[in-house]
Amino acid sequence: MHGRLEQIESPADVRRLGLDELVELADEIRSTLVTCVGTMGGHLASNLGFVEATIALHYVFNTPTDQLVFDVSHQCYAHKMLTGRASSYTDPSRYGTHSGFTNPDESEYDLFRAGHTSQGVSLACGLAKARDLLGKRHNVIAVIGDGSLSGGEAFEGLDNAATVGTNLIVVLNDNEMSIAPNSGGIYEHLAALRQAGGKSGENLFRTMGLDYRYVADGNDVRALVHAFAQVKDIDHPIVVHIHTRKGKGYAKAEQDPEATHFVAPASAVAPATQTYQEVTREVLGRKMRLDPSVIVVNAGAPSGVGLTPEFRAACGTQFFDTGITEPHAVAFCAGMAKGGAKPVFMVMATFAQRAFDQFIQELGLNRSPVTVLVFGAGFYDIDATHAGTFDIVTTGNVPGLTCLAPATCEEYVDMLEWSIDQRERPVVIRVPERMIEGGAGVFDPTHPGRWHVAQAGGDIAFLSIGATCELARRASALLASRDGVHATLVEAINYSSFDEPLLDDLLANHRIVVTLEPGILCGGFGEKVARYFGKTGMRVMCYGGKKEFLDRVPTEEFFKIYHFTAEDIVADIEALELGTWHR
Amino acid sequence: MHGRLEQIESPADVRRLGLDELVELADEIRSTLVTCVGTMGGHLASNLGFVEATIALHYVFNTPTDQLVFDVSHQCYAHKMLTGRASSYTDPSRYGTHSGFTNPDESEYDLFRAGHTSQGVSLACGLAKARDLLGKRHNVIAVIGDGSLSGGEAFEGLDNAATVGTNLIVVLNDNEMSIAPNSGGIYEHLAALRQAGGKSGENLFRTMGLDYRYVADGNDVRALVHAFAQVKDIDHPIVVHIHTRKGKGYAKAEQDPEATHFVAPASAVAPATQTYQEVTREVLGRKMRLDPSVIVVNAGAPSGVGLTPEFRAACGTQFFDTGITEPHAVAFCAGMAKGGAKPVFMVMATFAQRAFDQFIQELGLNRSPVTVLVFGAGFYDIDATHAGTFDIVTTGNVPGLTCLAPATCEEYVDMLEWSIDQRERPVVIRVPERMIEGGAGVFDPTHPGRWHVAQAGGDIAFLSIGATCELARRASALLASRDGVHATLVEAINYSSFDEPLLDDLLANHRIVVTLEPGILCGGFGEKVARYFGKTGMRVMCYGGKKEFLDRVPTEEFFKIYHFTAEDIVADIEALELGTWHR
Repeated sequence: MHGRLEQIESPADVRRLGLDELVELADEIRSTLVTCVGTMGGHLASNLGFVEATIALHYVFNTPTDQLVFDVSHQCYAHKMLTGRASSYTDPSRYGTHSGFTNPDESEYDLFRAGHTSQGVSLACGLAKARDLLGKRHNVIAVIGDGSLSGGEAFEGLDNAATVGTNLIVVLNDNEMSIAPNSGGIYEHLAALRQAGGKSGENLFRTMGLDYRYVADGNDVRALVHAFAQVKDIDHPIVVHIHTRKGKGYAKAEQDPEATHFVAPASAVAPATQTYQEVTREVLGRKMRLDPSVIVVNAGAPSGVGLTPEFRAACGTQFFDTGITEPHAVAFCAGMAKGGAKPVFMVMATFAQRAFDQFIQELGLNRSPVTVLVFGAGFYDIDATHAGTFDIVTTGNVPGLTCLAPATCEEYVDMLEWSIDQRERPVVIRVPERMIEGGAGVFDPTHPGRWHVAQAGGDIAFLSIGATCELARRASALLASRDGVHATLVEAINYSSFDEPLLDDLLANHRIVVTLEPGILCGGFGEKVARYFGKTGMRVMCYGGKKEFLDRVPTEEFFKIYHFTAEDIVADIEALELGTWHR
Repeated sequence: MHGRLEQIESPADVRRLGLDELVELADEIRSTLVTCVGTMGGHLASNLGFVEATIALHYVFNTPTDQLVFDVSHQCYAHKMLTGRASSYTDPSRYGTHSGFTNPDESEYDLFRAGHTSQGVSLACGLAKARDLLGKRHNVIAVIGDGSLSGGEAFEGLDNAATVGTNLIVVLNDNEMSIAPNSGGIYEHLAALRQAGGKSGENLFRTMGLDYRYVADGNDVRALVHAFAQVKDIDHPIVVHIHTRKGKGYAKAEQDPEATHFVAPASAVAPATQTYQEVTREVLGRKMRLDPSVIVVNAGAPSGVGLTPEFRAACGTQFFDTGITEPHAVAFCAGMAKGGAKPVFMVMATFAQRAFDQFIQELGLNRSPVTVLVFGAGFYDIDATHAGTFDIVTTGNVPGLTCLAPATCEEYVDMLEWSIDQRERPVVIRVPERMIEGGAGVFDPTHPGRWHVAQAGGDIAFLSIGATCELARRASALLASRDGVHATLVEAINYSSFDEPLLDDLLANHRIVVTLEPGILCGGFGEKVARYFGKTGMRVMCYGGKKEFLDRVPTEEFFKIYHFTAEDIVADIEALELGTWHR
């Protein structure tokens, strides 16, 4: 089954094969991908399309001396198979041993950890410049998909590549779509280039000062070897535009590349996410039908936020996919808000951080009535590149943003309905990561900064963000049963401001405030509470994540690692109380 | 002197003039600019070049119904003169009444507050889309300079403009340079377009799906009126490329447009900034001569960080200006670091926030040994768009970054020398905003996380960031004289981590810790200290800025507004101590 692949320990073994054998190798890699990714999950369609190109790159170039950079790097599975990590894909007992992205900790063939988009050409420009400064001679190759090309940083990189002026080979993997079908003027242009077999008089890359070459069949390993051999050791920057087929060789993926772009593991269930996506579609759909100025915006990653192809089609002109362009998407929304429309920007937490400056300038400073829905925030079993733990830092410290963290679906819907229609301020809503019952009437639109007292008590108060209210309830119950303390439970449903009357009330009959937040503590919510009470005698205990990158840690493990379970918290409170009594 | 200008109360008055009178008006505006900006400071050269275009835009288009968006907006002075705010430029007693950027709080003709670059087309796309959704009909015009075109967000906007597909007019103000001379492939292309009178077969904008028109003399008001009249009410997006002369009509500005891009007020002195710029050039120059792999990178704004034309020229290939592309610049540096070079990225604090995602991904996650020098951080008398108060939030919460805040020049030099040569980690150095004596030997390269105890004492401890150590010293002296307390003075020269042994030592014989930081408190340094001591009996008082945008507030006023003077702090301590004693 894995005859050829088993013999490949490094790219040197690839280079010993004949061209016919490369074709066999490609077939074997492809069937391995379908089997492996079908079971363990991962980026299927994007990898299927890039099998031949990966083989050809390692065949022609002298990796790792020649340096290969993957933009996004979710298309690196074949690369991993050819660089000593095949067993992670061929042996079910080793599935998932290696991450789904390039990682220098795994292999010298991986130069960077990359997971966000459009940085590959910039990184390659840096490698090329360093090579030139140090008087070295080797090829630098960046692999970038057409989807990543929509991101402005890719343009910045291409623009600079022309100035670097020496060897730099940009392989543009054009499969006619990013995660979802592409939109934007540049994609019309790529289509025209494909149509003209690369020989169009108008050529974006040439206008930017880059040389250009086209390979019509980017899944023909012979054609690719030929093309790469011709550009090897080139003395100036060139774009090699290869036309590949996303999902190539797997009928289901070829027919529906969007659905198979990322395949969830066979065992995966995410009922909360699915429910919140459904509820969001329902509310937005209803709002849009009533009001033609409501518009949903996404930045090239609709699947993570539940914007299904059917829903997008139903929205018509009230949906806009900007491509992978978070900065532009936020400014675009600010423009629409100024023009009287009601934009809702739906974004994954990990990508929201890309628009930090626009949150400050275009939303906060301009007080633009835009609604931002942040999905995938919190602790998740995910690659470190996609961590969703920085969203509170990204939004909660920006002047002018009203940041809401509902705990339940009812609260979420109330906030969403209010936010879309109000015209005073930018609102960020952190979509909860779990389903929790209750919450009707908690959010008061006339006082969006008011927190919710779920249980009035004394001595100890828990301040929770979003779904951590559940953990607070459990800790409170445990505290009641073990220590006879009837704690106060506060849901801090607005994490951008303090409910000062409430906090001041706590001072009267509480000794300890415990904050709980599903993100890193640094720059987060708990620290602000600690500052608020800093001058008082109130003890503040903050629970959340450390300032670190955790890689593919099972979701529940986070809470253990961070001493963030009901048992841990109660034990900490007991220890603190004992310590206090002794003083 | 101001004959024409005095009669212009709104653009409607411009529209009543004949073409010859428009020329006279332009001359009058130009001489007003030279006089006014020469005295009060501001963006001179960029405004001089855009006088005729501004007049022609208001003459042809029906502003404010037709919507005019300025990218960056530092070229809006003539626009302000024509929209009811001329006296702010003609009457010395009213100089500076209005800000140097568009501001909706000032006028309905100003749609957005804008100061960072490359967002104009995105905002205009939003206005156009809102117009279409709401069934309105008017022109939307974005004005963008060629410098802003290097920023990826501008590309994202242009790419989407093609997709919006309806009326959208992008006026590209091409003066052949941004702040400094332009670099990058696109500028070669703009030069080719100018050379060919706009009739080149290769056209970047057309390849992106945009219509295109060229105006060779962008300072000829008749030609501009003619061109704008032809595109008015157009039913699709078009780029109107106008070739203007930066500094037009003012010999000094025409000869040295970089020096006159921004003119400091006649009264301005900034000795600390200048000294730090000089010292930085000296250290970098020396390092570069010894080591060809040391390279200085800037993102299109060299003047603010002291990268003079002479210094840049002397660097040769060891200097690289990426254009206004902070995300790319950081990734480019990460690539160079990986390739074995020693990159130093010099950036203004206000622009550093544009690379937040790259700080996380390309620097922190990849542990890239890049040195980032942040200039202009802290409280300054500056437009709210350029606030330098978010840098601690931007960098101090990112895993993997070592963030240093020297207080003195000696410390700064020690840190810079160490950072360039070390190969383990990304380092951010916050260049101090004031000159303070002393500091030799404070920074210990073998323990970059160790803080400096400048004075050992008891009861009260001051933890200062950077130059706020001076304020701490004053408060300490006052406290000694008024209350007989001999306080401890700690300089937290590393704000990305805690010196835990030191903090724990403080617990033994201190009741109060006072933190001082020159930036917003939210997400900053003091809150982390408050969290650290949250469980203990230590009182923590945090001084810094509120989470708000302050606009053109005199530097010293910040400290008064934020109750952040030695007298205020000591009074607060006294009140707190009294309060404690009463409990």
